[in-house]
Amino acid sequence: MKLYTFFRGSSPFRLRIALNLKGLAYESIPVHLGKNAHHRPEFGAINPQQLVPALVLDDGQVLTQSLAIMEYLEEKYPRPPLLPPDATGRARVRALALLVACEIHPLNNKRTLDYLRSGLRREEAQVMDWYRHWIADGLAKLEAMLAGTPGTAEFSHGDSPTMADCCMVPQVFNAQRYQCDTAPYPTVMRVFGECMRLDAFDRARPEKQPDAE
Amino acid sequence: MKLYTFFRGSSPFRLRIALNLKGLAYESIPVHLGKNAHHRPEFGAINPQQLVPALVLDDGQVLTQSLAIMEYLEEKYPRPPLLPPDATGRARVRALALLVACEIHPLNNKRTLDYLRSGLRREEAQVMDWYRHWIADGLAKLEAMLAGTPGTAEFSHGDSPTMADCCMVPQVFNAQRYQCDTAPYPTVMRVFGECMRLDAFDRARPEKQPDAE
Repeated sequence: MKLYTFFRGSSPFRLRIALNLKGLAYESIPVHLGKNAHHRPEFGAINPQQLVPALVLDDGQVLTQSLAIMEYLEEKYPRPPLLPPDATGRARVRALALLVACEIHPLNNKRTLDYLRSGLRREEAQVMDWYRHWIADGLAKLEAMLAGTPGTAEFSHGDSPTMADCCMVPQVFNAQRYQCDTAPYPTVMRVFGECMRLDAFDRARPEKQPDAE
Repeated sequence: MKLYTFFRGSSPFRLRIALNLKGLAYESIPVHLGKNAHHRPEFGAINPQQLVPALVLDDGQVLTQSLAIMEYLEEKYPRPPLLPPDATGRARVRALALLVACEIHPLNNKRTLDYLRSGLRREEAQVMDWYRHWIADGLAKLEAMLAGTPGTAEFSHGDSPTMADCCMVPQVFNAQRYQCDTAPYPTVMRVFGECMRLDAFDRARPEKQPDAE
């Protein structure tokens, strides 16, 4: 399998964790978002959405959208599972993953921040206020979902990592990179700490990727 | 089942379509986003994310995030299916659904537009430019994924509606409500037309809901 990735991108980071947890080998193909490599026609031919990640299967089929790819991996390589066995548990894990993927990340990704700068002509201080506003809003929601809930244990759901953790960890990396205060989210940060003790999460870190700068 | 919904909200609209397609009866409980009813403590006790939809099962368990709830419904009530039988087909449908749910809707929902107005003090004309920018960006990506692709048929994937259509239709309603030009997306609009011929989609329309204004 070939993974079109970018070391700093949050969505490819999710998928690197999932691939590592499943013990699946893949070839990294870097797409430099900072240099707009995702807008080149060669990449558009692979993913018309011009977004990373994209996973190319050995038969040449291309999968896109990190959560859809994780579901595919879960179906094809069920061990170790990244979803719990019960339907309401799976619904909870997917909701936690989607809370990050739909309510936080889209507001803070590169193209959104770029449009605040160029389209709305906002100064950098306002762009950073925007960034931190949505991190605070989203991580508070995540903390409320995790804290004091029976499903939460060593990890976001139960005692082994799930898709929820694959999505949460890259988001916390982003929060730390932009000096957001994470003190109000003690459950999120405790689970983050548990995740980062695992080799599968550690090897997926941005600075350990071949394209890291 | 009880569905916490808002007639105009895009995410509860997705779920109303899915429930109708599955032939599942539910009780609608309106949460007036315009009056900030989702921020009241009573609703926060049901969904700590303070977002609609939330689906309360007959045993009292609460499910959140529209795509997670659709996956739950698919598992518990597999007929008629909203995902195709093959793993790469399912990955494609989920990617199409996530393209709407992650790349378009979060940038255009009420709380994002509210923050542009209050946090960034943008005038209404700039807020509408923002709205139309992300609709144009996202629907162009969706068109690129659908047009000329073998998986696309009568509907976004194959000849029966899927989760992809449940997500796309509410987004097109939003585009039309804000007078976005949909001419550049002929495949999206053709599939939209096919969907709206079905009773399950028509009954889920905002103006047909008990809380419609």
